[in-house]
Amino acid sequence: MSIEEGSYVLLFHNRTKKWLVKVTSEKKLHTHLGVIDIPSIIGMDYGSSFQTPLGKVIYLVKPTVHDFIMKSERRTQIVYPKDLGYIVVRAGIANGSQILEIGTGSGAITTFLASIVKPTGHIHSYDINHESISIASRNLGKAGMSEFVTLNEVDAHHGIEEKNFDVAIVDLGDPWTIVVQVYKALKESGSIVAICPTINQVEKTAIALNNGFVDIDCSEVFIRTIEAREGMTRPSMRMVGHTAYLIFGRKTADMRLPS
Amino acid sequence: MSIEEGSYVLLFHNRTKKWLVKVTSEKKLHTHLGVIDIPSIIGMDYGSSFQTPLGKVIYLVKPTVHDFIMKSERRTQIVYPKDLGYIVVRAGIANGSQILEIGTGSGAITTFLASIVKPTGHIHSYDINHESISIASRNLGKAGMSEFVTLNEVDAHHGIEEKNFDVAIVDLGDPWTIVVQVYKALKESGSIVAICPTINQVEKTAIALNNGFVDIDCSEVFIRTIEAREGMTRPSMRMVGHTAYLIFGRKTADMRLPS
Amino acid sequence: MSIEEGSYVLLFHNRTKKWLVKVTSEKKLHTHLGVIDIPSIIGMDYGSSFQTPLGKVIYLVKPTVHDFIMKSERRTQIVYPKDLGYIVVRAGIANGSQILEIGTGSGAITTFLASIVKPTGHIHSYDINHESISIASRNLGKAGMSEFVTLNEVDAHHGIEEKNFDVAIVDLGDPWTIVVQVYKALKESGSIVAICPTINQVEKTAIALNNGFVDIDCSEVFIRTIEAREGMTRPSMRMVGHTAYLIFGRKTADMRLPS
Amino acid sequence: MSIEEGSYVLLFHNRTKKWLVKVTSEKKLHTHLGVIDIPSIIGMDYGSSFQTPLGKVIYLVKPTVHDFIMKSERRTQIVYPKDLGYIVVRAGIANGSQILEIGTGSGAITTFLASIVKPTGHIHSYDINHESISIASRNLGKAGMSEFVTLNEVDAHHGIEEKNFDVAIVDLGDPWTIVVQVYKALKESGSIVAICPTINQVEKTAIALNNGFVDIDCSEVFIRTIEAREGMTRPSMRMVGHTAYLIFGRKTADMRLPS
Repeated sequence: MSIEEGSYVLLFHNRTKKWLVKVTSEKKLHTHLGVIDIPSIIGMDYGSSFQTPLGKVIYLVKPTVHDFIMKSERRTQIVYPKDLGYIVVRAGIANGSQILEIGTGSGAITTFLASIVKPTGHIHSYDINHESISIASRNLGKAGMSEFVTLNEVDAHHGIEEKNFDVAIVDLGDPWTIVVQVYKALKESGSIVAICPTINQVEKTAIALNNGFVDIDCSEVFIRTIEAREGMTRPSMRMVGHTAYLIFGRKTADMRLPS
Repeated sequence: MSIEEGSYVLLFHNRTKKWLVKVTSEKKLHTHLGVIDIPSIIGMDYGSSFQTPLGKVIYLVKPTVHDFIMKSERRTQIVYPKDLGYIVVRAGIANGSQILEIGTGSGAITTFLASIVKPTGHIHSYDINHESISIASRNLGKAGMSEFVTLNEVDAHHGIEEKNFDVAIVDLGDPWTIVVQVYKALKESGSIVAICPTINQVEKTAIALNNGFVDIDCSEVFIRTIEAREGMTRPSMRMVGHTAYLIFGRKTADMRLPS
Repeated sequence: MSIEEGSYVLLFHNRTKKWLVKVTSEKKLHTHLGVIDIPSIIGMDYGSSFQTPLGKVIYLVKPTVHDFIMKSERRTQIVYPKDLGYIVVRAGIANGSQILEIGTGSGAITTFLASIVKPTGHIHSYDINHESISIASRNLGKAGMSEFVTLNEVDAHHGIEEKNFDVAIVDLGDPWTIVVQVYKALKESGSIVAICPTINQVEKTAIALNNGFVDIDCSEVFIRTIEAREGMTRPSMRMVGHTAYLIFGRKTADMRLPS
Repeated sequence: MSIEEGSYVLLFHNRTKKWLVKVTSEKKLHTHLGVIDIPSIIGMDYGSSFQTPLGKVIYLVKPTVHDFIMKSERRTQIVYPKDLGYIVVRAGIANGSQILEIGTGSGAITTFLASIVKPTGHIHSYDINHESISIASRNLGKAGMSEFVTLNEVDAHHGIEEKNFDVAIVDLGDPWTIVVQVYKALKESGSIVAICPTINQVEKTAIALNNGFVDIDCSEVFIRTIEAREGMTRPSMRMVGHTAYLIFGRKTADMRLPS
């Protein structure tokens, strides 16, 4: 499959030197490995390689959703791949799922989930921050996911119009404040997932979920890379110590509504 | 949504006491919480609850793919949710992906990936073990994923007929022996994922992938649960120390084939 | 060195089958590996082995302090070796250190620290529970550490008579309540260490230490074992997910005393 | 206790800005927090504080062995506190222990263990690298541990003169090559500890220890810090992913010597 004008390509040298570019007829990319002439890529095959003027090899990799997310424009910390994956599995997200997202952020979770639930599933995502909505909109566009997402620049605390969601993802600083609205918007047996950087948020959210939800589960996911070399294999010396806790729950018919 | 005869329901009491049942007009389920009369569930709503003869509350939860996997019939160790999720994200699996799986096992990975790639994506899964193929077939059937998967009771070392896969998942004891066949079956820039319980497998597989693949990444994923209780929140005392290492790579145009 | 009557010996078969016994002239030890005749050990060398009536090999190992701790009589959860070690290093405990311990428990920390600070160092340990003091006293005796420890069945909140401690170890449910008393008992620049199972305790204790202490550090230590076998090396599938958080601080001259 | 000329002091501003200095009558320390006039410290108390010309508070902390190690002159990676502590506990090192160390490095382990085993215990440490021996000698001197350590600039493979060690610490690239010599130098039931950065070293060393040792245990220790702040407590985002594996074993009377 050859690369056409307008395609996205991941220029891959190594794990830390890689660039996601849109192939146009007039861009030059200046890197420490030398200047890369983007138009010269047109017509080459994905998987093939070329050398920079400095003699460094660059591979032309077809970007995945993961690449779009990791190279996305962002305003705040994105959720890490390790966390994204566990959310999908644990909440039972699948093709066709109807998703509510509260806290769009830069749209990383939105992009990833859209790639799974499309084309029959859909994501309704709420954020009160205008800049977040703009950034998310651009990131979704680049990844080709715009049509599967509705962005709402609205405070979800004031009510969520849509109903019958399979899953709700809450990425707010105070997830416990939105539990009643999420409960009402979820389908019977639907799942809630809250993303909480601090343990205090975990405690408050878990307590709130004890009303109306079962199977409540708070987890943290770690990942460590291994440097595999013949006769010298060892774990990497650096790892990420923490991103966020993930809290899951499933809606029951029993919620004691505040009087 | 009310429960009909023939539906699957997760009978949920707590994290360790839960049963996945098919609702029929004649089954009784004997549990430590008392005998549960399955036909009496027909017509109840998902999310609602009832009490067992011993006064224990059981919630009727609509099962997700995750529930089907965790409660699946199995012959060998299944891949854990934490690992499944990271495979999806890191390999860029999305709706519509064409997947090659070598080592069907009990079909847990197959079931999960089918739920994501369906209906336009498809999984071709190979296993030489007759019993594995039978068990996987039953597990896929229960989860409603049979039509999105082709099971092959064939040794993939002898050649893989289909081509142009987006992603190949290798769950064999000696993944390095199948790298050339996988290379040929993958689309340009396609991803390979190998699942390796031992570090020796990681080393050999990573060395094999250095020919024909880039962006090689070996990782291990950990998960720890948190017991959130007001004023007494702490991590769980037990955690799983190890399941498997995950190795990723992306196909390039450059493979030195064995002469 | 041959084993004498009255000596302690660790009868070691494997990691999970091992017994710490006092060699006497009349005991038989009944185990799943067969009955072991203790008097027959007298005169054998440490490091040598014998077979049980069932043909199982038992090694005669000279017990270390670690063995005494792991096989000690206990009333409550003991502190784990991983945590004990980090306490010694991080608090700068060394031969000759004067130690204050609040919360003797079963004397595991006491025993270990005594083995390091003896003979010129000393431990003053407080506990309000009579049974704890009794158990700790017996455990210290077995390990030969009694003369280096003073046990006080007294509530340390009512005042600590001794002064000028190098290090204070606090193993109470509410360590923040004892910070002022510990401050007064510590030498200039002395270290406090608090052992906290829950994160709520960590938060409260850290806040309390912000008055009068610097270099405040909260850590959790994990340990994972590796099963090393030729060509099949892998981490163990089980690990301990949590024991306790450890909080460290060093006394400054500046404490705002409560008015 | 007031600070005298010739004393060591840890000038502590925060976790990342701290300096270990010897108090002399003529040094100025240039820091980002302003110039610190060392002679002015003479006569101040440990635990007290002063302000730099830039108004930053510096505490005068009496250094522990841990401070000397963390601020030691080094040629190679030092062993981390988390690993040091576990070595002491697991190998049963205590006051009075006779220690053999093979691979002195910069003397960090040596310094720490000397602080525990002194004054009756002793460490015989071997290294073939002249510069390592020089650096270790200076580091031991600063920490006041010189008299409890004998440094040997000798290849231990050619034989170890001393016998009857309680514990041997091996910090070499190829620990399996020295197992027979260590075996001969250990007391009955004595412990060996090998420090191995790679998993390949672990596998080879564990196999070698299967001859002549029991209770073989390979572990890795992790540590994660917690940032405790009122209502915002969370683990640190960074952690060290790997330093080294630690392998333990205990000498038995049964070694099949190479013919």
